[in-house]
Amino acid sequence: MNKVADIAPFHAIAISREAHALEEQGRSILHMEFGQPSTGAPAQAIAVAHHVLDTEPMGYWESTALKQRMARDYQDRYGVTVDPEQIILTCGASPALVLALTSLFAPGARVATARPGYVAYRNTLKALYLDPVEVACGPAERYQISADALAALDPAPDGLILASPANPTGTIIPPTELARIAAVCADRGIRIISDEIYHGLSFGEPAHSMLQYAPDAVIVNSFSKYYSMAGWRLGWVVVPPGLIDTARARMGNLFLTPPVLAQRAGLAAFDCADELEGHVASYRRNRQLLLDALPAMGLARIAPPDGAFYIYADISHLTDDSLGFCQRLLRETGVATAPGIDFDPVDGHHFIRFSFAVSTDRVADAITRMIPWFQAQTGR
Amino acid sequence: MNKVADIAPFHAIAISREAHALEEQGRSILHMEFGQPSTGAPAQAIAVAHHVLDTEPMGYWESTALKQRMARDYQDRYGVTVDPEQIILTCGASPALVLALTSLFAPGARVATARPGYVAYRNTLKALYLDPVEVACGPAERYQISADALAALDPAPDGLILASPANPTGTIIPPTELARIAAVCADRGIRIISDEIYHGLSFGEPAHSMLQYAPDAVIVNSFSKYYSMAGWRLGWVVVPPGLIDTARARMGNLFLTPPVLAQRAGLAAFDCADELEGHVASYRRNRQLLLDALPAMGLARIAPPDGAFYIYADISHLTDDSLGFCQRLLRETGVATAPGIDFDPVDGHHFIRFSFAVSTDRVADAITRMIPWFQAQTGR
Repeated sequence: MNKVADIAPFHAIAISREAHALEEQGRSILHMEFGQPSTGAPAQAIAVAHHVLDTEPMGYWESTALKQRMARDYQDRYGVTVDPEQIILTCGASPALVLALTSLFAPGARVATARPGYVAYRNTLKALYLDPVEVACGPAERYQISADALAALDPAPDGLILASPANPTGTIIPPTELARIAAVCADRGIRIISDEIYHGLSFGEPAHSMLQYAPDAVIVNSFSKYYSMAGWRLGWVVVPPGLIDTARARMGNLFLTPPVLAQRAGLAAFDCADELEGHVASYRRNRQLLLDALPAMGLARIAPPDGAFYIYADISHLTDDSLGFCQRLLRETGVATAPGIDFDPVDGHHFIRFSFAVSTDRVADAITRMIPWFQAQTGR
Repeated sequence: MNKVADIAPFHAIAISREAHALEEQGRSILHMEFGQPSTGAPAQAIAVAHHVLDTEPMGYWESTALKQRMARDYQDRYGVTVDPEQIILTCGASPALVLALTSLFAPGARVATARPGYVAYRNTLKALYLDPVEVACGPAERYQISADALAALDPAPDGLILASPANPTGTIIPPTELARIAAVCADRGIRIISDEIYHGLSFGEPAHSMLQYAPDAVIVNSFSKYYSMAGWRLGWVVVPPGLIDTARARMGNLFLTPPVLAQRAGLAAFDCADELEGHVASYRRNRQLLLDALPAMGLARIAPPDGAFYIYADISHLTDDSLGFCQRLLRETGVATAPGIDFDPVDGHHFIRFSFAVSTDRVADAITRMIPWFQAQTGR
């Protein structure tokens, strides 16, 4: 029997565990290590959940009404027509990615991703015996895979995972480049998975969906970020019509159904734009506070944070060990962050990721603690 | 690139869709096609969920308290010591099986299952490029894999999925045989996955856990059956200490976290024994009603329904096409059932599965409709 795939640990989890341990010892901790909203679900979604708890036995169930509402949102938001049958509801974006990958690829398939990128892309590919083809992306490429880079890959990969806005950088791929990427992929037979989990969270132009340029792309998304429902575990994939049966068979066998309460509440969340846009306004303030503070922290080289709620900063002038750096930052200031090595095993030892999905007060507090600490690092 | 694995559809879903379509036309339908309780979560679990909705933002989270309570349950129920760290909470038993399989096996591994068996075993194995080794099990083996059958497999499989009580038959493997199976597996290096999702639902002796006989077995279970929380999506695996890191890495990347509400409510469900045992008493009545009615329906050959909430009956004297038979039964009586071919692609065309996880009134109604219908079939 072959050996089971080896997967690297997610170091931000270790940071978070230490942060919680320090908290239990009475330390004041500011959690900027994970990408999760500190807000809860919208009030109307909560109200619906209360009603469902009192009125439904909640068996295995998939909401047709929710899929219809989501299809309408694709029309309204992106101008693309999606048949509700193309939408498969999942228990979050993580299993949605598993569903997408297992529906498209068999073991040995080569799937390109940007480096830096979300840690689970590399790890999930490995766990499914797919081969990650990591494309180094630096500031010149806004830390994103370009159409040119895809065209130059030899041999062509079987697939591509895109993320725009991206984790850990927050960079958005402009529409013209999305179109060029779609053309290269169509030309070279590369199947696209577009992770659009940070859509709705942008600070300049809104992100476009890959569906606008590649109708046969598989879209991964969830209610965890914009809809502020991380712990409800509801995500989805959009698959092209020819892939519906393949994907549904995997959903039914590998996952069965998504949570009933999350589906009912998720439908209600579509009517909560004011509350949700309020969160975005808060992230916008947090982002600006951090951007204003970075010079005093001596951090000049960052990825353009077009969207999501992250700043990915180059700390190569301060350390060659981002994990150790994040541990010291936590122990000495109480600010928990994620080390770059989670997102980039090669160059990530020179980067740190700040998540500003917390309250503005906490971001301000973190800045107050970090400025003198970062200034002291320069002298070490 | 290799072709993605082909997976057979779950025919009970087609039956269920037709049943719901008939219902919308005004027909009275009795749903005995799926294995889900018609009851909801226990009242105290619902009350806790209401409180959590009002007080917690619900981010990505795994409950240590729940894992501790579950570990205590393993001690109380089976007399086995489980470290809470050995428990990994999942979004139901389906992803728990994916977690177990991907933690233990690499593509090409051969995994034995009983035929008949739960459809997702075969399909999930195929979707993960593992090779199902289906062992034909008839009435002589109580439709379960025996230690002797395992000892005779040549070559030895890499793994084994056991289910006791089983789906679709409800048969329980006696403790002496579990011990013999554990010994054969230890001797031949066969890794055991024991699906214990129907534990708590037994009508004679309670089922034993495979952990009592094989400490390195991987256990799959969920809150969907005994705890009556199917649509909450909460399951778990128990892994041996040496597999914790491997399994946790897969949980974090492929699934992330289970739903917060389900975890909070699931902990409360442990204090709801009276309500939950009431469900078991109801299943016991339903089972007896069906057993008493089977002779009048002309169904003499059934698997011993020791547990779960199924009766798997031989209908070879009536049809060679269980799917067509179930469709006719549905259309002519309104009773929805599952065809044997879902559980056994070879011999299943001669079997039908009745789920009695509905109310006793409905089981009685179904019997009233089915007796004359079955009697008429004999004359066809």
